[in-house]
Amino acid sequence: MDFSSKLLENAVNEVSRLPGIGKRTALRLVLHLLKQPKEHTGYLATALTTLRNEVNTCEKCHNISDTLLCEICSNTKRNTTIVCVVEDIRDVMAIESTLQYKGVYHVLGGKISPIEGVGPQNLEIDSLLSKVKRGEVSEIIFALSSTMEGDTTNFYIYKQLENYTITTSTIARGISVGDELEYADEVTLGRSIVNRIPFEQSLRS
Amino acid sequence: MDFSSKLLENAVNEVSRLPGIGKRTALRLVLHLLKQPKEHTGYLATALTTLRNEVNTCEKCHNISDTLLCEICSNTKRNTTIVCVVEDIRDVMAIESTLQYKGVYHVLGGKISPIEGVGPQNLEIDSLLSKVKRGEVSEIIFALSSTMEGDTTNFYIYKQLENYTITTSTIARGISVGDELEYADEVTLGRSIVNRIPFEQSLRS
Repeated sequence: MDFSSKLLENAVNEVSRLPGIGKRTALRLVLHLLKQPKEHTGYLATALTTLRNEVNTCEKCHNISDTLLCEICSNTKRNTTIVCVVEDIRDVMAIESTLQYKGVYHVLGGKISPIEGVGPQNLEIDSLLSKVKRGEVSEIIFALSSTMEGDTTNFYIYKQLENYTITTSTIARGISVGDELEYADEVTLGRSIVNRIPFEQSLRS
Repeated sequence: MDFSSKLLENAVNEVSRLPGIGKRTALRLVLHLLKQPKEHTGYLATALTTLRNEVNTCEKCHNISDTLLCEICSNTKRNTTIVCVVEDIRDVMAIESTLQYKGVYHVLGGKISPIEGVGPQNLEIDSLLSKVKRGEVSEIIFALSSTMEGDTTNFYIYKQLENYTITTSTIARGISVGDELEYADEVTLGRSIVNRIPFEQSLRS
């Protein structure tokens, strides 16, 4: 692209470094900002830099939080011995929105991925193991996405926990509620048959 | 969405004000920035605010330009009496990339759109008419998109020019080069038959 302005080119280049945003989309977004009052761009820039510079994570679960202990970890009604292991804040938000979970979380900050150069030492795995060693945990629920990286991370943590007497579980995989069987993929359908549950149990949830 | 951090919520809200970006995409983009070094967010914020605060438009064609006169208007090899009327810088970039046009541009900054509250007074129409009144223009080429708003804007300017002896033209609409006729829409195909050109002429371009 041949821009008539270095300032414009620079802004488009920076915006197009964001994932999933190409040069054309970046140009559209930047031109939109130019049509808005100057304050809008100021608010956006300030919000991003303030977040980046002042962001904090909960010292217990490592989720993004403005306070030292996040709202979930500091809630005395939650069962802190049940720990759900997730990748990032989006998973916490998704599970919280179900209103079905009363334990706490442990946010790893990613998944083990040799291709992207993410090893166990880059994730909050040691702090999870410390919690277990201190006897603070009775059950760990693995809730990482069921990809190669997610399974690898689950298994890595699982192996580290072998010598401790805690329960480990993983969230149920199966056919989505309301979905037709004929359109489900074979792996999911296969797992949902192998891991079938007593009918009485399904009536309760 | 229920965020655990006000800073995060604020950043996501600001990003999701951009056109075509919802809350989920905004959260994905913001979390990406959090995983990058702090400088990246700084570069992005600075590039946007610098552009917004220091952006200049060419005093002749009103295209975005870092200099008082843009590169095209200050190029002595361009024919300044032929003026192509476009909506914004994207159209200039698109036409420039064809290498087929040797005239200059006039960037309106939008199209007349009563629904969005954009009237002729919000666009660079008066400055275009001034150029014509001063006798600087021999031909005006309308190159706005062929939507209701584009056609309205073309016609509004065309009516203002009735008393001046200049040529007005509009870019050719027709079947894209390489396209199959059977998949073309009827309006375009109809126009391409009505506005057919001598075969010899097609050999030249």
